[in-house]
Amino acid sequence: MQHAKYVIGLEFGTARARALLVRVNDGKQVATAVREYASGAITEKLPADAGGAKLPAEFALQDPKDYLDVLKTAVPTVMREANILPESVIGIGSATTASTMLPVESDGTPLCFMPKWRSNPHAWAKLWKHRAQAQGERINEVARKRGEEFLKRCGGKYSGRWFFAKLLETVEKAPEVYEAADEFIEASDWIVWQLVGRSRRNNSAAGYKAMWLKDKGGYPHYDFFKALHPKLERVLDEKLGGLEIYEIGASAGGLSRKAAALTGLKEGTPVAVGIVDAHAAPPACGVAEPGRLCVITGGRICHLLLARERRDIEGVGGVVEDGVIPGLWAYEAGQSGGGDLLAWFLQNGASCDVDLDADKRGLTVVQALEERAASLRPGQSGLLALDWWNGAQCVLMDPELGGVLLGATTQTRPHEIYRALVEAMAFSARKIVDTFTKAGVAVDELVACGPLAQDSSLLMQLLSDATGRTVKVAESPHTVALGAAIHAAVAAGKVAGGYHSLPEAARHMARVRPEHHRPHKAAQEVYGQLYAEYERLHDYFGRGANPVLKRLRRLKAGAPSAGLT
Amino acid sequence: MQHAKYVIGLEFGTARARALLVRVNDGKQVATAVREYASGAITEKLPADAGGAKLPAEFALQDPKDYLDVLKTAVPTVMREANILPESVIGIGSATTASTMLPVESDGTPLCFMPKWRSNPHAWAKLWKHRAQAQGERINEVARKRGEEFLKRCGGKYSGRWFFAKLLETVEKAPEVYEAADEFIEASDWIVWQLVGRSRRNNSAAGYKAMWLKDKGGYPHYDFFKALHPKLERVLDEKLGGLEIYEIGASAGGLSRKAAALTGLKEGTPVAVGIVDAHAAPPACGVAEPGRLCVITGGRICHLLLARERRDIEGVGGVVEDGVIPGLWAYEAGQSGGGDLLAWFLQNGASCDVDLDADKRGLTVVQALEERAASLRPGQSGLLALDWWNGAQCVLMDPELGGVLLGATTQTRPHEIYRALVEAMAFSARKIVDTFTKAGVAVDELVACGPLAQDSSLLMQLLSDATGRTVKVAESPHTVALGAAIHAAVAAGKVAGGYHSLPEAARHMARVRPEHHRPHKAAQEVYGQLYAEYERLHDYFGRGANPVLKRLRRLKAGAPSAGLT
Repeated sequence: MQHAKYVIGLEFGTARARALLVRVNDGKQVATAVREYASGAITEKLPADAGGAKLPAEFALQDPKDYLDVLKTAVPTVMREANILPESVIGIGSATTASTMLPVESDGTPLCFMPKWRSNPHAWAKLWKHRAQAQGERINEVARKRGEEFLKRCGGKYSGRWFFAKLLETVEKAPEVYEAADEFIEASDWIVWQLVGRSRRNNSAAGYKAMWLKDKGGYPHYDFFKALHPKLERVLDEKLGGLEIYEIGASAGGLSRKAAALTGLKEGTPVAVGIVDAHAAPPACGVAEPGRLCVITGGRICHLLLARERRDIEGVGGVVEDGVIPGLWAYEAGQSGGGDLLAWFLQNGASCDVDLDADKRGLTVVQALEERAASLRPGQSGLLALDWWNGAQCVLMDPELGGVLLGATTQTRPHEIYRALVEAMAFSARKIVDTFTKAGVAVDELVACGPLAQDSSLLMQLLSDATGRTVKVAESPHTVALGAAIHAAVAAGKVAGGYHSLPEAARHMARVRPEHHRPHKAAQEVYGQLYAEYERLHDYFGRGANPVLKRLRRLKAGAPSAGLT
Repeated sequence: MQHAKYVIGLEFGTARARALLVRVNDGKQVATAVREYASGAITEKLPADAGGAKLPAEFALQDPKDYLDVLKTAVPTVMREANILPESVIGIGSATTASTMLPVESDGTPLCFMPKWRSNPHAWAKLWKHRAQAQGERINEVARKRGEEFLKRCGGKYSGRWFFAKLLETVEKAPEVYEAADEFIEASDWIVWQLVGRSRRNNSAAGYKAMWLKDKGGYPHYDFFKALHPKLERVLDEKLGGLEIYEIGASAGGLSRKAAALTGLKEGTPVAVGIVDAHAAPPACGVAEPGRLCVITGGRICHLLLARERRDIEGVGGVVEDGVIPGLWAYEAGQSGGGDLLAWFLQNGASCDVDLDADKRGLTVVQALEERAASLRPGQSGLLALDWWNGAQCVLMDPELGGVLLGATTQTRPHEIYRALVEAMAFSARKIVDTFTKAGVAVDELVACGPLAQDSSLLMQLLSDATGRTVKVAESPHTVALGAAIHAAVAAGKVAGGYHSLPEAARHMARVRPEHHRPHKAAQEVYGQLYAEYERLHDYFGRGANPVLKRLRRLKAGAPSAGLT
């Protein structure tokens, strides 16, 4: 019998990163290690050694040094734990938050590593949740006027959280940083650069976050960038390190000597092209073909759907050719209320009684709420919520909306509110499923992964009841890291003991749990009625009939709201 | 110097009663005692000695024996504490929840005291919150068809919680109890009967709860009752102990020998005619003339406004001639969200963090929330609520509506929700003030009393900011009991050392706190905007444009909601 082969998948998240060592032939997860970033997500002020300046609202930065620490510590940890030789590792892959971008010198050194720039917030990595709102609006305005194609591909709204909004912010607010930088690069690509010793920009981040359209010859025209800002006229030539883009699922090259020394792996080990974190999940859920919606739960919820054709669909945050699986279009639709919403509720909305009840029954608070909420019949809470605590994503794409709860009485108990919030998440998912279906993109079943899929069988069942689809749950609790490992196995290639494609690798390395959630007829009937109410309120509050939620935001911010009608 | 004179005011509430000994010349509250009812409010099942039968939903009963215990224990307690002689007590008055009614024999013995009837729930006192919903609807239907005047006086809806709805329920559900009873009587009148040895029904309970219109010759015509139920045709003659009604503020007679023995007071001590609890409060707030709105806070909030003329006003729950102060019309308007709503929030909606924060700062939970909520500027929470956790009273009079909260984000903290709920209560009060004002009944200032007036200076300030009126707060924390004492002083009369009228007594015995709440200009401006949003949502959800709140109630109850449009 041959020695088993392994791959390493790395997931670079918001506050920490994970390394996962996986056996190639069957996807067995052999060892995993988590490394918290020393600086975490930097949102209040710069670290002391950078001067400690207070950051403006909407700023969220990372220190790229933290990414290197992961390579240096988490990779050796999993190797040690699994007790295998570097020779057995045939590939390494990584999936990273996006758009998280940073300015670097021509050799890849981040500007924020240099004393001269360290105290300038714009010299740091701008984390995905960093928002350049004004610049995003400006981009939309210019793109609308010019009829830019990329705008259609992102549901009509380019986000202030994406690559060129952040870059435009740097040009406007810190032109000296813009001038000093040789390149602005996605963190996903910067990490791969550290591994292979050269820049290999991926089509996933470029396609979903940076206006790059494979079928339209790449980035928008110079004129577009010039219209945004005169200094951006030649941004493509001067600041993006050339226009070459590499397809996900391919090899970016072999591990450099330096990176081999850093990680303890063998020089030359194939390294996969980077990818946006959530986009690595579908193959790890066994989703590598059209018709099955991959539901990636986290603080928010990301829906990815594969199809052979591209259509323009309202509120779909991105549609990218080869964005998830080469050869297929991948639609991305976001749902703003996910784990963040439930975490908010646990932290702020559930009374001490809930904690006491959980204690008494030897359960976690979530388990206690889940159990009591699951015992209610559909409609029994008398409540209905709009899950807009983080604003609305698909289909309204409106961050200024806010959460709504209706029907509370003095008899309403916390587990009833919990259920109403979970139901609202299920309705929000149905909205996405219906939107795809109406546009002619089939959704036959749902495959969910991430913390809520692991922990909330209530949400899984309600997703099924609300959408009328079977819902399956990925077996792995680390689908993004597993997805990165699957990419590594494909980068390694068949000959080296890996696979020739993502679908092939997924067939061997990914699994779903044996129990599936199927719609209950009686529940479907009630949720049909409640969903009609949800939709009516969704449109009333979300499509302009009553813009009270936006006016409340304005009042919150201290501005008069009178002008908004 | 003359010996000081005293009066005793009794407040019979839902779960307990209070006795208050008051000095007549200046209203000084000398001693007070609270007596919890042994059986409390009976809502789940009858007491064991009555067979322990489970009660239907909406049932809420009291044991009249508990009222007698109050006379026997609380009155002697205040006398003992104050260390005064019975001769110094020149009068006794009482104010009682309404409509709380019970069936009695001709000598006043409650049916539920008799072994034969004790196990029948209809033989007990039906507490004010006991609701005979179907019977209330039937009454409205019949009254509308016949164009009954009383319907106008109670805002177009006779409540299922009122006297004749409860009586109709007894006829329908327990005809044997109806037959056996010699009289059905308000608890307020039954208590006075126990004190003076004869029935003296008061015009306050009769006017607000039992269709009695002084200016129209009293109760509705026989034909109306016959149309309700054939057995009710002669209810006025057969079951109400004659048609005589006594005006509040008068003497019902002297304390009987038996009651003197029970209470330890002197036989012949003047006893005031009974009154509905909240209606005793205005004189104790110094409100005895038109133009000042008395805001009586409790689980719900009761607004009482005096005027020289009667007008028909939407959603005003009652308007009764001489109902609060003889010679004036008294309008009553209810606000459903009061202490109950905040208590719900404390119990269910405020997280453990709030408790910990309060502990750390040595405050009660309410104090901690008040303090943090008060530090927010108007609009800063970004939230807006409709205070319908108990359904809506004035002006919609719709118990099937439910609470609404808008604008929550994952940054929303419990003290912000608390503030939004208090703001909603202030908006609801403004709706009432505006409704009166538009109808031509002046509201120049507000005088508040009760627990929320005592404890929430935030609510008091927001009432002022939302209505643009000065808000004063009664000095006494026991205005209902003090009001009963004021009635006692008037029943005693001038010659005995009391007063000749309620306004005169109020001038001497009632006080407001020296600090008044006045509207802040900047806050008024923001609350003007927020109130416009409140009104729009109030009408959208409350006047039929989107009856989702009613449909949610139907779904909660398990019935299909499809028919409701």
